Amino acid sequence: MPGNEADVIDMFLRHLGAVRTDVALGIGDDAALLRPAAGCELVQTTDALVEHVHFLPGAPPRSLGHRALAVNLSDIAAMGANPAWALLSLTLPAVDEDWLAGFAAGFGTLARAHGVALVGGNLSRGPLTATVLLSGQVPAGAALRRSGARDGDEIWVSGTLGDAALARQRPAANEADTHRAWLRARHEFPSPRVALGAALRGIASACIDLSDGLFADLPRLAGASACGAELEVDQLPLSEAARSIGGAEAWQQALAGGEDYELCFAAPPARAAQVEAAAAQVAVPVRRCGRLRAQPGLELRRERAVIEFSHSAFDHFASAPG
Amino acid sequence: MPGNEADVIDMFLRHLGAVRTDVALGIGDDAALLRPAAGCELVQTTDALVEHVHFLPGAPPRSLGHRALAVNLSDIAAMGANPAWALLSLTLPAVDEDWLAGFAAGFGTLARAHGVALVGGNLSRGPLTATVLLSGQVPAGAALRRSGARDGDEIWVSGTLGDAALARQRPAANEADTHRAWLRARHEFPSPRVALGAALRGIASACIDLSDGLFADLPRLAGASACGAELEVDQLPLSEAARSIGGAEAWQQALAGGEDYELCFAAPPARAAQVEAAAAQVAVPVRRCGRLRAQPGLELRRERAVIEFSHSAFDHFASAPG
Repeated sequence: MPGNEADVIDMFLRHLGAVRTDVALGIGDDAALLRPAAGCELVQTTDALVEHVHFLPGAPPRSLGHRALAVNLSDIAAMGANPAWALLSLTLPAVDEDWLAGFAAGFGTLARAHGVALVGGNLSRGPLTATVLLSGQVPAGAALRRSGARDGDEIWVSGTLGDAALARQRPAANEADTHRAWLRARHEFPSPRVALGAALRGIASACIDLSDGLFADLPRLAGASACGAELEVDQLPLSEAARSIGGAEAWQQALAGGEDYELCFAAPPARAAQVEAAAAQVAVPVRRCGRLRAQPGLELRRERAVIEFSHSAFDHFASAPG
Repeated sequence: MPGNEADVIDMFLRHLGAVRTDVALGIGDDAALLRPAAGCELVQTTDALVEHVHFLPGAPPRSLGHRALAVNLSDIAAMGANPAWALLSLTLPAVDEDWLAGFAAGFGTLARAHGVALVGGNLSRGPLTATVLLSGQVPAGAALRRSGARDGDEIWVSGTLGDAALARQRPAANEADTHRAWLRARHEFPSPRVALGAALRGIASACIDLSDGLFADLPRLAGASACGAELEVDQLPLSEAARSIGGAEAWQQALAGGEDYELCFAAPPARAAQVEAAAAQVAVPVRRCGRLRAQPGLELRRERAVIEFSHSAFDHFASAPG
């Protein structure tokens, strides 16, 4: 049983993730030493998973390790950047070796898949929280931003939407049901679209990751680009499982359920073929589902008619229990 | 009253800290975009303050904002690096504007003093925790490390030791007492030795910051340098307040009390004059108090005799309440 912070870090975190030659000094000193690539800008983000807010007690640790990194990878993907180095700050109510081993396995597997080295760790006793700082690199001037889109640009989304929300609403789902198992996997092990983000550099005019749902996140992209947006909700990409399980309201979860970690991006209509080619190259499906317009606000259309939609946008801070 | 995460970040965090021309994109997109300096390595660290573990309920928010950044600045100082960019992840049980304003004032004042820009923020509802991720830069190959010292190198410490521990033990101290007020200020507003760390590049052979106390931290430096150490406890630098209030056991707090955020470093005897000159240039007192030796372990001497000391090293994880 490890006795203190340094022992726990040694046992579970020291060599987690990818081996990178640009790490001059990893875990074990007062700070990590890293060698940035010439000609690149540094991209940094942080996101936290807090028990009772972002996950419930008893959530599988392997999924939490995956998600703690995935939500940050998704931010790096939205900038069109290549992830590189992570730091992890964990607070735990007690040292539970099984939990730590599961968390480390989930984090480490995803980190290696994306070439991310864990270069710093901090452990404290306290309420269960996992905070990740992730750095990436992008050729100088080439990063995608929320701003940059123009009136007339088309709106695209990757993958399928609403799966995680449908899984959250059905925690008691029968494991033998293929559709339900697939939805649960989408929630517990989301796929950050890192390769797609990088492939869209020079093609997309703006990009954002879908953490709170399209209904909340698309207005952020449109607003940063000084535009409004029209969205065809019939065009939202739904998985076969969502169509099967989600019923008539599956599109509502696709719109506002959150935690999809897909990319929403804009591109001029003339670049549609380039978008399709870039997406095909990284084998991620993309779908056009609207366009930006000069008039502010978000207009939703269904079967060509404007519709009202009042689902509150998900906000971790305003809507959390407590 | 701000209603959601984005509003709270806008109101309290968006423009906190220094303005830096190397920040291409700060708070407000999916990630920050930063321009590393040519010829430098990147230095990264993370540390968290957790309520009930690192501070008690009701701790002054201005002090918490200061300390959340200071503990990370101290790690950057120990590497001999220049701090640059911070990200802040806060979990709060509720939005309390007075608390946030105080925290932001404490964080922002220290950030500006050290040229640090806050480039990313994340807010969640949850148990009160402040996690900071701090990046700095150092000329490639010039960073100080824990390793690098040799048998015979002298051990130095900056400032005075034990003040924070004495303040923690006397929370009900009379505010009118100058000594007690000074100790409290040392605890609530520690001074990370950033300028000293940078001045010691090329002079010190190894360096560590004193967060857990010399008794715990010096063996880390010695061990990383494949050495043991001898420490003359009579030579530990005590403040006038510590001598006055701490009584006969002040040296024990200097040895093991923790939270001093001073630097402990090693240098060959032939560089003693350079050490003194570097410290004088940045106006930080330094004191020689021991030396490294080939034999492993830490030997303490008092009035020239070897002494035993059994105070448990402070460990946030092993010794936290709960």
